[in-house]
Amino acid sequence: MSRPQVLAGASDLDAELATAVQRELTAFIAARETECTRIDRAVGSAVRVLADFVLNGGKRLRPTFAWWGWRGAGGDPGGEQARAVLRVASALELLQAGALIHDDVMDDSTTRRGMPTVHVTFAARHSSRRWLGPADRFGAAAATLLGDYALLWADDLLREAGLDPLALQRAGAVWNSMRIELIAGQYLDVRAQASGDETDLAALRVARYKSAAYTVERPLHLGAAIVDAGPELVAAYRRFGTDIGVAFQLRDDLLGVFGDPAVTGKPAGDDLREGKRTLLVALALRAAERRADQAADAAVATVRAALGKPELSGDELHAVRSALIDLGAVDAVEHRIEALTESALAALAAAPVAEPAASRLAELAIAATRRNR
Amino acid sequence: MSRPQVLAGASDLDAELATAVQRELTAFIAARETECTRIDRAVGSAVRVLADFVLNGGKRLRPTFAWWGWRGAGGDPGGEQARAVLRVASALELLQAGALIHDDVMDDSTTRRGMPTVHVTFAARHSSRRWLGPADRFGAAAATLLGDYALLWADDLLREAGLDPLALQRAGAVWNSMRIELIAGQYLDVRAQASGDETDLAALRVARYKSAAYTVERPLHLGAAIVDAGPELVAAYRRFGTDIGVAFQLRDDLLGVFGDPAVTGKPAGDDLREGKRTLLVALALRAAERRADQAADAAVATVRAALGKPELSGDELHAVRSALIDLGAVDAVEHRIEALTESALAALAAAPVAEPAASRLAELAIAATRRNR
Repeated sequence: MSRPQVLAGASDLDAELATAVQRELTAFIAARETECTRIDRAVGSAVRVLADFVLNGGKRLRPTFAWWGWRGAGGDPGGEQARAVLRVASALELLQAGALIHDDVMDDSTTRRGMPTVHVTFAARHSSRRWLGPADRFGAAAATLLGDYALLWADDLLREAGLDPLALQRAGAVWNSMRIELIAGQYLDVRAQASGDETDLAALRVARYKSAAYTVERPLHLGAAIVDAGPELVAAYRRFGTDIGVAFQLRDDLLGVFGDPAVTGKPAGDDLREGKRTLLVALALRAAERRADQAADAAVATVRAALGKPELSGDELHAVRSALIDLGAVDAVEHRIEALTESALAALAAAPVAEPAASRLAELAIAATRRNR
Repeated sequence: MSRPQVLAGASDLDAELATAVQRELTAFIAARETECTRIDRAVGSAVRVLADFVLNGGKRLRPTFAWWGWRGAGGDPGGEQARAVLRVASALELLQAGALIHDDVMDDSTTRRGMPTVHVTFAARHSSRRWLGPADRFGAAAATLLGDYALLWADDLLREAGLDPLALQRAGAVWNSMRIELIAGQYLDVRAQASGDETDLAALRVARYKSAAYTVERPLHLGAAIVDAGPELVAAYRRFGTDIGVAFQLRDDLLGVFGDPAVTGKPAGDDLREGKRTLLVALALRAAERRADQAADAAVATVRAALGKPELSGDELHAVRSALIDLGAVDAVEHRIEALTESALAALAAAPVAEPAASRLAELAIAATRRNR
């Protein structure tokens, strides 16, 4: 492992975290790409697509929470451990990439981060080369394998980050739980779509495991575990992280229906087309049940007709938006986001978090829940 | 980690390796299943399907090669390290399970180890419960996620096996290369099917990476790395392992077309239906080109008509068998298997491999290449 002095200048890392994460990811993937090219140039060229996906996108939210979780627990950005923590934080981006690539195959999503999804990219290559067999099957296979690489390499980057053995052991335990939760959340999501589970409990469970846990709670926990933070701080981080993480996902759900595709990088309405029972939808259905008048019944019929309809039109999407607003579901979700953000900030304020991390985490909490992309 | 004395009796492990691997896998997966059930009972129940897949099948070939690789390099079955090696060897079964589950989704295979494949199992659950959306999409999603668990848990079992840090570092390097090769081999396989690459070179490259490397070569290498074996032994293992591994895959290719489904646990002809360009097919095409007579042209036409035809009938399969025999491809592959086995055994005989491992590895080489399942 290189020494910290290769980094710009000690505590600049606080300010240039995204750049530093980008540098680590670039170097790590380049080494793997070389190894793959040595096996066969075609494999190296496939890994290039994965590299582009990892390097060109994302808000770097997970590394940011991991970094500030570590800083808030006393981590020193000018110290010996900083480089290793940077790499652990970067590993979260690879984990996220693997999860997204597999998720997009499962949902057959066409666009991600404003670009064609990985399986769509490979299907297009297949078509343009007039290859044999169905292009979409080839695309799905290539994306599944590249997702496997991303998930496994995330592990490697964690193990090779340069943590001392005890810190690695502590971080590894958090990491294992996080991976289990992430995949469990994805499974609960597809299962709820299939079984048509429409309760808000089911929607919140998916939001918690599929998104909150590995977006905020576990990254913070990971940072804290590296410096062996005490149980009080860990508990506060986890409370803050769960609340902000769920609020983050609720914002995502709203953006999925109401967001501007030019800003979000994803088509509007895809959650509806895939039949996802988000909290937004669950609350709309519940509100209609309580009201039980004709207008509410009509609004619910509009929402139900859209759920799981792949060819949902712009007009139909517009009608669903009106129905969700009329049923009060949008207000209810906005209030929920607000309440979660408030309770998260209260947990943070009461916790022994070192500055400037405490202020930075509070800002991040606001940014993650009030964003438009 | 438990101490070695919990094991039956020291060197019994040589004789009861398969039982011991089964015990390790059972305990490891049970712990993960508990963790998943704690998140949600539905996740635990899904993991149960993975557990059944891992525990009910397979020849345990990879753990066996890893174990005897370690024994041949001086590993002591009554020593402190034995339990950890047993767990590293068991991790290979989880890696294999993950690779097979994803492979079956990509190929849409229906049967594996005489049972419905994992995605077919979940699609059937979906249908029997009259869930929403397409059953096959739910099946593929569930199997993708369970495959992810298997791949990641294979890593965990390696890391948690109880190796000392230096042995783990050496084993980890071999493990990383093995995973890269395995996934690269799978990618080269689907790519060759799609691009219609029919050269024997392409077929051998796929056999080497997709199968040989992680079936024999790297498991042996892993065993040797744990005890820091010298370069001479490692080189011999790798030569032996590559040759036996490729021969193993060539036997698999023959069984895929000529095997008895009641014995192999897989439908006959699936490789043809999927359009796989195995060495068997490549050699048939090349032989026909050399002969360039009418009978050869007719035989090639029969083979080509079958390649990538999902609804290939029993009669058509029978015709392909005759064509492959007529073109001399079956004989050519049998000769290749024989030559590879001979060169492997020669490499083994010249290497400093401790007994009884040397004899055992020679027996395994024969068994892996002359089997009927």
